[in-house]
Amino acid sequence: MNIPDFGEIRSAAERINPYIHRTPVLKSSAINEICNADLYFKCENFQKMGAFKMRGAMNAVLQLSDSEKKNGVATHSSGNFAQALSLAAKILKIKAYIVMPSNSAQVKKNAVLGYGAEIIECEPTLSAREETLAKVVERTGARFIHPYNDTNVILGNSTAALELFIETSDLDFILAPVGGGGLLAGTALASYHLSPDCKIIGCEPFAADDAYRSLETGIIQPSINPNTIADGLRTSLGDKTFPIIKQLVTQIVRVEETEIVEAMRMIWERMKIIVEPSSAVAFAVILKEKELFRSSRTGIILSGGNVDLGHLPF
Amino acid sequence: MNIPDFGEIRSAAERINPYIHRTPVLKSSAINEICNADLYFKCENFQKMGAFKMRGAMNAVLQLSDSEKKNGVATHSSGNFAQALSLAAKILKIKAYIVMPSNSAQVKKNAVLGYGAEIIECEPTLSAREETLAKVVERTGARFIHPYNDTNVILGNSTAALELFIETSDLDFILAPVGGGGLLAGTALASYHLSPDCKIIGCEPFAADDAYRSLETGIIQPSINPNTIADGLRTSLGDKTFPIIKQLVTQIVRVEETEIVEAMRMIWERMKIIVEPSSAVAFAVILKEKELFRSSRTGIILSGGNVDLGHLPF
Repeated sequence: MNIPDFGEIRSAAERINPYIHRTPVLKSSAINEICNADLYFKCENFQKMGAFKMRGAMNAVLQLSDSEKKNGVATHSSGNFAQALSLAAKILKIKAYIVMPSNSAQVKKNAVLGYGAEIIECEPTLSAREETLAKVVERTGARFIHPYNDTNVILGNSTAALELFIETSDLDFILAPVGGGGLLAGTALASYHLSPDCKIIGCEPFAADDAYRSLETGIIQPSINPNTIADGLRTSLGDKTFPIIKQLVTQIVRVEETEIVEAMRMIWERMKIIVEPSSAVAFAVILKEKELFRSSRTGIILSGGNVDLGHLPF
Repeated sequence: MNIPDFGEIRSAAERINPYIHRTPVLKSSAINEICNADLYFKCENFQKMGAFKMRGAMNAVLQLSDSEKKNGVATHSSGNFAQALSLAAKILKIKAYIVMPSNSAQVKKNAVLGYGAEIIECEPTLSAREETLAKVVERTGARFIHPYNDTNVILGNSTAALELFIETSDLDFILAPVGGGGLLAGTALASYHLSPDCKIIGCEPFAADDAYRSLETGIIQPSINPNTIADGLRTSLGDKTFPIIKQLVTQIVRVEETEIVEAMRMIWERMKIIVEPSSAVAFAVILKEKELFRSSRTGIILSGGNVDLGHLPF
């Protein structure tokens, strides 16, 4: 595995800079007291469209040539990447085609439609997604952008941790949730270059612990019927994300569903900010492993804030 | 009515500065687009204990002499001022006695107990509150601090708008919710001194429109059986807050309960921050009167973020 050099991260940051928010890093004295640690929350829930995915999508689309952009972009996603690619395409005035499972929540479909993208529905299986996407690409000539298993997407995602490291020195740990691994791999890349002593912790639900099992066995393990509230973390690692994670990530820590909900509630109640369950997974790891993080300076990437307020777990 | 001079606001700001957060002013491009205006949200939901009340409580307690402080402080409140006075007392290592109606939510009692204050329960009527408070003061010698009808509390509250005006020039409007009038009066004082051309709008539920009726009739009208979700706005004006509001506030605008919930939901969904219904009342006024605020630069005091996540209106 060749680790991209720091110049590539810096270039991604410069490239997407005009199109994204530089999100704040928040602290909470109440939460620091509870955890006996200095915690720095990088608030990607305040990012455009509500999640870090905007960074990777923007970086990928901006690197297409004019002829590649001509026919638009396509992806399959029922979650935040669908919105991110739709918004990136809208900003650059190109078309976006989003393959979404027919059982996707209406609130998610509406968000994608709101950014002007075209939705193509398919059966809710991975093979149906891939087949439908192939047909869309064939019909439209659109360029497929993978939600996470894409080096440009990973490099775009790395800019969240880049900003955190620039603002916050001497972190002992940095935590990010892991689903397909796009955020964790990007976070690890930034840490490797900017803060090599910082330990990188991937955070995962027990109910979707394919990344944990992949690191244990050394080969990518699929995520089979993941039943977790952290809907952004149900995907499996890819051949672009796994090698980076395998080489650079210190440890994957798993948490229970009740721990995720408790962590989410604590962030909402104490910090007065809205984060989605996938984001709360990283904070749940700190609450679960208090001794590990005691007296440390620890960064946490809050990955997103898109929740359906009509279906909250509390 | 003698308007306190600017030196008094500045002194309050310097006095409380070591004990409060300087809260951020947030903008949302999505919301600005919806409203066709430049909106600046002063986020007192991020203030210590979750509401602007910390400013007034801290300013009042800090001005007690050592002998006045000796026996502690007391108030009657089921809401944010109960927590604010408890925390201010805790910080200064004095006792706090909080008279709370017996039907107060357990979550609110727990918050007060968490700050180390003593709760004295009473029947849920205004006369029971006042009688119980009088007994507590007689028994303990504690100093009574009124939740809003107190010049030092008003001056403390004025520092939220002070910070907003320092950070954000040339506001055409500033909006604050009005319950007992402590926040609105403080906001009006800061505006009068720092931005005299800025129009000051009080925001109130129709279901508790005593401030509107008081301004219409020129005398304080009581709030009778107010039935609004904006639980911080059920109180009546006092003889300290009303004269300031009468002299300086441009207009009171009223909104319906459904409009409050819709505004609250929009802030949660678009800004990813948690505000309580009383805070949403001010934004509801902007959504209701879009023409009035079109193309304006408008500040909004988001008064607090203390909600019971187990009882949300959506």
